Amino acid sequence: MSALQTWIDGVPGVSVPSDDRGLQYGDGLFETILVRDGRPRFLEAHLTRLMLGLARLGVPFESIDALRADIACAAAQAPSVAIIKVIVTRGSSRRRGYAPEEGARPRRIVALWPTVLTPSVASGVVLGIAHSRAATSSALAGLKHLNRLENVLAAAEIAEGEFDVIMVDFAHRVISGSSCNLFVVNAGRLATPHVDTAGVAGVMRGIVLREAPRLGIGCELRALTLEDVTNADEVFATNARAGVVPVARVGEHPIRMMDLSLKLRAHVESLDA
Amino acid sequence: MSALQTWIDGVPGVSVPSDDRGLQYGDGLFETILVRDGRPRFLEAHLTRLMLGLARLGVPFESIDALRADIACAAAQAPSVAIIKVIVTRGSSRRRGYAPEEGARPRRIVALWPTVLTPSVASGVVLGIAHSRAATSSALAGLKHLNRLENVLAAAEIAEGEFDVIMVDFAHRVISGSSCNLFVVNAGRLATPHVDTAGVAGVMRGIVLREAPRLGIGCELRALTLEDVTNADEVFATNARAGVVPVARVGEHPIRMMDLSLKLRAHVESLDA
Repeated sequence: MSALQTWIDGVPGVSVPSDDRGLQYGDGLFETILVRDGRPRFLEAHLTRLMLGLARLGVPFESIDALRADIACAAAQAPSVAIIKVIVTRGSSRRRGYAPEEGARPRRIVALWPTVLTPSVASGVVLGIAHSRAATSSALAGLKHLNRLENVLAAAEIAEGEFDVIMVDFAHRVISGSSCNLFVVNAGRLATPHVDTAGVAGVMRGIVLREAPRLGIGCELRALTLEDVTNADEVFATNARAGVVPVARVGEHPIRMMDLSLKLRAHVESLDA
Repeated sequence: MSALQTWIDGVPGVSVPSDDRGLQYGDGLFETILVRDGRPRFLEAHLTRLMLGLARLGVPFESIDALRADIACAAAQAPSVAIIKVIVTRGSSRRRGYAPEEGARPRRIVALWPTVLTPSVASGVVLGIAHSRAATSSALAGLKHLNRLENVLAAAEIAEGEFDVIMVDFAHRVISGSSCNLFVVNAGRLATPHVDTAGVAGVMRGIVLREAPRLGIGCELRALTLEDVTNADEVFATNARAGVVPVARVGEHPIRMMDLSLKLRAHVESLDA
């Protein structure tokens, strides 16, 4: 199950120059966009996050129109459910060394991937707890950047049957899953961790934060411990691929309810975006 | 001043598959090896660190002999002073997602780069102080991994005339430069930070830690503040390219002496390795 097709700067291809700073240093960002029936879901939210992130890294990306065209091209040949993964790097280095070069041209890599959404995603998944910790880094927090070794090490801990593993930082704060954000529900109100010291500001997390008030559901950003998660009325995970995912168990702790999670899931699935 | 030649898995080439996990996630390690008169300096120290790092990341790399052959091939066509940059990634992913795949074959990328050693490196350099902070991460600390966005952001702060910038963590501890380790000298004794929460265990740092006792110079690993650096008798930076580099000024603070730094520099330069 490899990528169905990849475009490098708009041209079908399978390789990138070995001096690309994405490879050399992880110097770039990415987006994982769900495509349903040929439509990229929440495309504007993905592109907005990407552009904000590139600005934060000082990557002079001016090819947003070309990127939209790449995505449209990929979506046009997508199966009924698919993923478009977009990477934008700072481009090739003509010299060695970390410092960004003047005049480097950012590179975009757009790949169309098959995906399968398992039914269990809608009926309650299991989360493990990762031993590997999330670092604390304000300069990079929130960004969906290419420095993802922590996530790789955490994901390597996902056991058979688990949807994902929960990552905590050195202060024992819950950050996220390796590839999802986390919410708890208590007395009908949502809470999810800040992403200002670690973690990724997920697009689906943003959609939930935007939509919850419209459904009359309160929501706050606050630090969560593992106990906050295991003791919650409900827990759900979010990402662009799977949407809102009710959690039935965290480690050994069953989570009893998922009413609000299912309501939010149905609402988000029904959004025409 | 691009790479003079690159070998991908031993074959001359200029590109890597776009599904390489080094590009997708920064999932790999690298080494920067100085070549002088056709000889890679401190090669065994570089290869030992690389193999230990790959084991720590769980990358099943079994091509050490082929890598040695790549390096010998690059060294044979190197100018009198050059850099061989070695990258080993976890290889290509056939599916999307952070979790490492069973059976993936690590990929090696060996590039020969020109380099110039400026005379000022031997006569005292200037270090700036980076605003961007180093994250704290035990899982990755010490490794020369491909997740180097922090170093990129710090290196972007290097001002004209500065050799490098000092990076500190959120607890105000000095970690390193963006591309060097740091030592202070007080009353004839060396001190350098631990690299167990952040930073890279530099090969030249290791050489200094090994050689100092042989010269009767004491050395300790301990946390350093910026004040410890600016108030030190001497300060020096180390990396594989420039060796031991005496520091003449840190920000606005002149460093008065460099006798021991110069002695260590001369000793390390004279080593037949």
